[in-house]
Amino acid sequence: MFLHQKELQFEAKPDKPNPLIAKYLQELIGGQYGEMSVAMQYLFQGWSCRGEEKYKDMLMDIATEEIGHVEMLATMVARLLEGAPVEDQEAAMKKDPTIGAIISGMNPQHAIVAGLGPRPADSVGNPWSGAYIIASGNLLADFRANLNAESQGRLQVARIYEMIDDRGVKDLLSVLLARDSYHQNLWAQAVKELEEKEGTILVPSTFPRNEERLDIAYDFYNFSEGDQSKEGSWAKGKALDGEGEYQWLSTPKVEGKAPKLDPVTPKMYGTPPEK
Amino acid sequence: MFLHQKELQFEAKPDKPNPLIAKYLQELIGGQYGEMSVAMQYLFQGWSCRGEEKYKDMLMDIATEEIGHVEMLATMVARLLEGAPVEDQEAAMKKDPTIGAIISGMNPQHAIVAGLGPRPADSVGNPWSGAYIIASGNLLADFRANLNAESQGRLQVARIYEMIDDRGVKDLLSVLLARDSYHQNLWAQAVKELEEKEGTILVPSTFPRNEERLDIAYDFYNFSEGDQSKEGSWAKGKALDGEGEYQWLSTPKVEGKAPKLDPVTPKMYGTPPEK
Amino acid sequence: MFLHQKELQFEAKPDKPNPLIAKYLQELIGGQYGEMSVAMQYLFQGWSCRGEEKYKDMLMDIATEEIGHVEMLATMVARLLEGAPVEDQEAAMKKDPTIGAIISGMNPQHAIVAGLGPRPADSVGNPWSGAYIIASGNLLADFRANLNAESQGRLQVARIYEMIDDRGVKDLLSVLLARDSYHQNLWAQAVKELEEKEGTILVPSTFPRNEERLDIAYDFYNFSEGDQSKEGSWAKGKALDGEGEYQWLSTPKVEGKAPKLDPVTPKMYGTPPEK
Amino acid sequence: MFLHQKELQFEAKPDKPNPLIAKYLQELIGGQYGEMSVAMQYLFQGWSCRGEEKYKDMLMDIATEEIGHVEMLATMVARLLEGAPVEDQEAAMKKDPTIGAIISGMNPQHAIVAGLGPRPADSVGNPWSGAYIIASGNLLADFRANLNAESQGRLQVARIYEMIDDRGVKDLLSVLLARDSYHQNLWAQAVKELEEKEGTILVPSTFPRNEERLDIAYDFYNFSEGDQSKEGSWAKGKALDGEGEYQWLSTPKVEGKAPKLDPVTPKMYGTPPEK
Amino acid sequence: MFLHQKELQFEAKPDKPNPLIAKYLQELIGGQYGEMSVAMQYLFQGWSCRGEEKYKDMLMDIATEEIGHVEMLATMVARLLEGAPVEDQEAAMKKDPTIGAIISGMNPQHAIVAGLGPRPADSVGNPWSGAYIIASGNLLADFRANLNAESQGRLQVARIYEMIDDRGVKDLLSVLLARDSYHQNLWAQAVKELEEKEGTILVPSTFPRNEERLDIAYDFYNFSEGDQSKEGSWAKGKALDGEGEYQWLSTPKVEGKAPKLDPVTPKMYGTPPEK
Amino acid sequence: MFLHQKELQFEAKPDKPNPLIAKYLQELIGGQYGEMSVAMQYLFQGWSCRGEEKYKDMLMDIATEEIGHVEMLATMVARLLEGAPVEDQEAAMKKDPTIGAIISGMNPQHAIVAGLGPRPADSVGNPWSGAYIIASGNLLADFRANLNAESQGRLQVARIYEMIDDRGVKDLLSVLLARDSYHQNLWAQAVKELEEKEGTILVPSTFPRNEERLDIAYDFYNFSEGDQSKEGSWAKGKALDGEGEYQWLSTPKVEGKAPKLDPVTPKMYGTPPEK
Repeated sequence: MFLHQKELQFEAKPDKPNPLIAKYLQELIGGQYGEMSVAMQYLFQGWSCRGEEKYKDMLMDIATEEIGHVEMLATMVARLLEGAPVEDQEAAMKKDPTIGAIISGMNPQHAIVAGLGPRPADSVGNPWSGAYIIASGNLLADFRANLNAESQGRLQVARIYEMIDDRGVKDLLSVLLARDSYHQNLWAQAVKELEEKEGTILVPSTFPRNEERLDIAYDFYNFSEGDQSKEGSWAKGKALDGEGEYQWLSTPKVEGKAPKLDPVTPKMYGTPPEK
Repeated sequence: MFLHQKELQFEAKPDKPNPLIAKYLQELIGGQYGEMSVAMQYLFQGWSCRGEEKYKDMLMDIATEEIGHVEMLATMVARLLEGAPVEDQEAAMKKDPTIGAIISGMNPQHAIVAGLGPRPADSVGNPWSGAYIIASGNLLADFRANLNAESQGRLQVARIYEMIDDRGVKDLLSVLLARDSYHQNLWAQAVKELEEKEGTILVPSTFPRNEERLDIAYDFYNFSEGDQSKEGSWAKGKALDGEGEYQWLSTPKVEGKAPKLDPVTPKMYGTPPEK
Repeated sequence: MFLHQKELQFEAKPDKPNPLIAKYLQELIGGQYGEMSVAMQYLFQGWSCRGEEKYKDMLMDIATEEIGHVEMLATMVARLLEGAPVEDQEAAMKKDPTIGAIISGMNPQHAIVAGLGPRPADSVGNPWSGAYIIASGNLLADFRANLNAESQGRLQVARIYEMIDDRGVKDLLSVLLARDSYHQNLWAQAVKELEEKEGTILVPSTFPRNEERLDIAYDFYNFSEGDQSKEGSWAKGKALDGEGEYQWLSTPKVEGKAPKLDPVTPKMYGTPPEK
Repeated sequence: MFLHQKELQFEAKPDKPNPLIAKYLQELIGGQYGEMSVAMQYLFQGWSCRGEEKYKDMLMDIATEEIGHVEMLATMVARLLEGAPVEDQEAAMKKDPTIGAIISGMNPQHAIVAGLGPRPADSVGNPWSGAYIIASGNLLADFRANLNAESQGRLQVARIYEMIDDRGVKDLLSVLLARDSYHQNLWAQAVKELEEKEGTILVPSTFPRNEERLDIAYDFYNFSEGDQSKEGSWAKGKALDGEGEYQWLSTPKVEGKAPKLDPVTPKMYGTPPEK
Repeated sequence: MFLHQKELQFEAKPDKPNPLIAKYLQELIGGQYGEMSVAMQYLFQGWSCRGEEKYKDMLMDIATEEIGHVEMLATMVARLLEGAPVEDQEAAMKKDPTIGAIISGMNPQHAIVAGLGPRPADSVGNPWSGAYIIASGNLLADFRANLNAESQGRLQVARIYEMIDDRGVKDLLSVLLARDSYHQNLWAQAVKELEEKEGTILVPSTFPRNEERLDIAYDFYNFSEGDQSKEGSWAKGKALDGEGEYQWLSTPKVEGKAPKLDPVTPKMYGTPPEK
Repeated sequence: MFLHQKELQFEAKPDKPNPLIAKYLQELIGGQYGEMSVAMQYLFQGWSCRGEEKYKDMLMDIATEEIGHVEMLATMVARLLEGAPVEDQEAAMKKDPTIGAIISGMNPQHAIVAGLGPRPADSVGNPWSGAYIIASGNLLADFRANLNAESQGRLQVARIYEMIDDRGVKDLLSVLLARDSYHQNLWAQAVKELEEKEGTILVPSTFPRNEERLDIAYDFYNFSEGDQSKEGSWAKGKALDGEGEYQWLSTPKVEGKAPKLDPVTPKMYGTPPEK
């Protein structure tokens, strides 16, 4: 059960309206790694959690914080759209080339569909999708997904930070950068904790390793000409999982044969066989 | 530039046809974390690589291997569909309840659209989407995405392994399990290498930290009642990034005010103001 | 800003596991008119609200309630999936035709992707989409969207209620039916209030009517042969907007000409003109 | 069965080409509430209609009219694209900043994919989706969907009307505004007729109310701090359905317990339990 | 402008209800190559037609016929769903394994969302998408798209024809098979006519060939080991376009260099360069 | 199994960076008819091939070539994005209107998400979709799909060729134009070969024609007023399939009746019947 408090956790006021920045911030609301994604991802992970209570509680803490992040960004976008050049645009464009650029660069759905409000979509207008998120029931796997999400997220915030000049927006981005820093620390920490507890870095840790092809489980195959890949730490030495030894093969192992499929019933009307 | 060799790297032959297993394997072909996803993700990361040659070469090696994985699974699906009960289904269903279950459980597009061949889609029929993948230009961020992808991927393979009885399919899954083991080792190793090189676990490592709100960059906010989240290693002690000290706050910090949006031009025809 | 309370608002326990019911309930979680849709729709409407405070507050109240509904359904789905026949399915199918039907009817992603947890998707597996929702900045328009959403929602709950036998699930559905009843009352009431305040049923109420083609604003055109449409209350009498008089025309008015497009630059390489 | 008449019902000629307006009009063709949506929605409702003939006939009348609306808008877009600055754009941009703004603002698919013709997509390029529409088999529910669609539709037309200066386009928009007015009247009227006939405003009207939790069917729960929501007409007095009495509760009722999920088979390879 | 006639062009009555067949027929309504696709594709091609009137008229003739095909199939699906086992399913499943298979095989949205009516979606539930269709403004290109669509369409109808036993449904499929035959003839004929008129088989015919790399315009590159591809009619002899001579190269020509991308501004926060 | 060679097959270097051209080229990477589509389409056709080896080999040859085309375009896009005006945009816009136009026209995801790299998406940002491609198991059908894809593809390349001024990009487009020419020749040739072999132009060729409604298999129905469609070669004379005789009917044949659906169980809660 959730409760809503009217205050934003942090302030969300731009120095002045700017519909291009509003378009950029949509990536942080409804993009693949935006706040809708992390909120929903953590919620579904929490709701699926069959493990220890401290992980479930922590997931719900962060998930709930992230819904508030969507709120701050949605508010910021609404304010950035105030005063956008939406009326008699042709006349306005002729007067001033900068206004022309703003009109042509603005997301038209911000005006036509949302009446100068935020959209559940990314910076090019793709609607947010449930396909962005994962909740697998395996926390080590999912915490890696979360660490990735917060890494991509902070990266995108940092980029927008450099693209814009508005101090008010930058102040909110500073907050998001800090929270994404903490969340990277947090997920990396929780990953470390679980790896230690499960005794391996491999997900899933409990699958019996003798049922996988262990003889090929430490091979690097050189599928792309050139052997620079040999220089990496993944190419030789003790594997991180503590069990095997990496080896770099200049030519990929081949065991299979060229596949030849059998014909199926002619009632599927595939290409008829040669007579 | 790519070249194709006729042999499959590993064999892909089921003991006998089984359209339900064919449906499951689609998740590994065209699902969010299937082989199309990892192949495309590594390709775009390689093609975007502006950094050291060994990473680019390594990305192209693995990417190229993964296209071959799609091929093995596609071949397996084609063979699992041979002999599927596609003709005069009503009559067939009446004769045998197991056939009835197979008919009703089979993916109808395997017959109608693909004529008993594989589909670029997942186990419930969603077409594969470019929205599944990421190539950000920041390798540390992207290698975390890759570690996640291989973790989710191996988890899904392990689950299907337990769901089925077919030895031939299991043999291919053993191969995939092993390769996903290696690729988890590899990405974890590469992540470690980059973290050490960049001197921090935070992505992006070069963003000036004094431009983020450092005062809130180590706080855990207790947004969900109950304080079990306090028990985690993320709640106190030195942060993994080596700079701050985690702290757990029983009540979230609040700095913002309740937002009140200004009206916009009446020409957007929002709700008219109270008179 | 949001807070999370551990208790579910209402209980979410099935009598016994049942993966087919789990599949059905996904429609109520991630379908076009599921709880994710109403939660997100009301949130974005609230965040875009530039009008009176009571509407904004009310939107946030209901939105926050709905996030809790997603939580209850997600929990129910997780419990319905416990004990699903996921192992050695071929052997299990042979033993019992009912198990066979369950295996073939189950959503395979519930096992493979979510490890027996809920998905942010509908009953056939389409991921939830931001394209399902609307927040236009015009409350009368949006409250009509909401009334529709709660109507479709209650209808779907009622249908599932009849399809299943599980008392525990039915108890939760009884709750949802009641809340959807209230929310239908609420949105219908709010629509009535706004229509009275704005003095018309037309959205948007403030567009100057002399700039629309008033001469055709009350015409019913008989585009489909047969004249039963003439019997409706929309075909004659005073219009609901209080301004015009409905009229039924047996033949649609035609003012336009057959369109003939001009050629464009040959550099677009359309079909070359006849010589 | 359908027939096509060459004349457009109303004229569709812009004063002069303008690719930015062409981009805007795409929202009215292939957006969530564009003419493709209403045409398809009414067609599927008509085709699913198991009720009285007058509703089916009426649905087919309006649906057929709406296909003609798509035609008028598609024609208008084609004409707005004539003469668009598609050749040697770099040179053209340098000559004139207004042309620069047009080039950068234009939808590139209008040139590259459609050769200066209309697209089955919205103003930011999302392809039209069957997920936009509903046909539930319950006319009262669906007529509410229709009333919403015509409300959002007229709102969007009104906004574009203000954004542009072209008289020819505005003339067509005046027609659409008028037809959307009529269709709002029509659906509101049909809703009223059905509510009176079914004797309640609740959808579905025939579900036995004693099987829902009537004790919570009139409660407003204050989930968002602040009590402005108490001021609405939905908070006290006789409910619109004529049966209950609204009540406003300052604190949400809580009946459930904090959910704790049972473990599932270890073969799903979720997080292993603590030892 | 369109008109609707109540009669179906051909009868659409199944022998008896069957929800599995209803699920199959959805592919023909809302699949990639279903009737919604051809209807919409021909409409947009007609509306974009800047060429000779006979092509535009023909496109509108066929497009309008296809809307009627959607109607026949939608009606058939509605009838196939009558009497589906939607109530108290658990009890029903226990009684009869065939009913069990039907329940688990049925598309749940047919009941829950559509109340036993058709859906604008394919046989696995993907909503129809505007991304399925093309209207490029070049008729030769588009008629090839149409020939493909009618080929895939007739193939899918033929497959379903063999899968089912219902005579009534088969009668409608016989009609569709015949119409798809005609439409294949028609598009192939129109393609031939345009190729003769334009004097080449190459689309677009008017692009100056000296601006393409003519020296590589007739080469087959052997990218996949094995030289069976050499046996095809595409490997030697006069090219179909009447200009060049095919040649088969055992090794692909290579002109390019290994790409090495330049670094970009550090403000994009990509991977930092090696020191 | 695939191998990667570092060299690009052809060079991919623009004269100078240009983010607008980068946006256009995305259509050729991830659009409906871009290189990802043809690569994936030919791969799945090859993997599904149950027919003669020469077709399978040829499909794999071309598919593998096309993956290399994606690589060349991805490299070109990365280079076109170097030096894009991504920093302090507001200041930059004020200085120079051309830069303003570039900023507002640029795809924001090129900077925010990809850090100045390519995206698996089209020119307006829609992610590439598995729904774009087909592999039906019937080669004649699929080769027609391929001929269409190469026709649309070459058309789009030709259009972009005219839109831009950059010689380096044009050089790569010249290559693509030539390869698309060859591939059109190739698919047309293969289609011809198969048509001759199968003895008909109809797909599928083996469906017994007496099970289709032959009496209506050569009729053109005049569904759109005006009889210009009568002038086409499809309207009279021997049909291309060599069996029937085309005929043009001024009025469509009508055999069906107006459909009247039966009521379904009241438990689906459709509109209740009139009393």
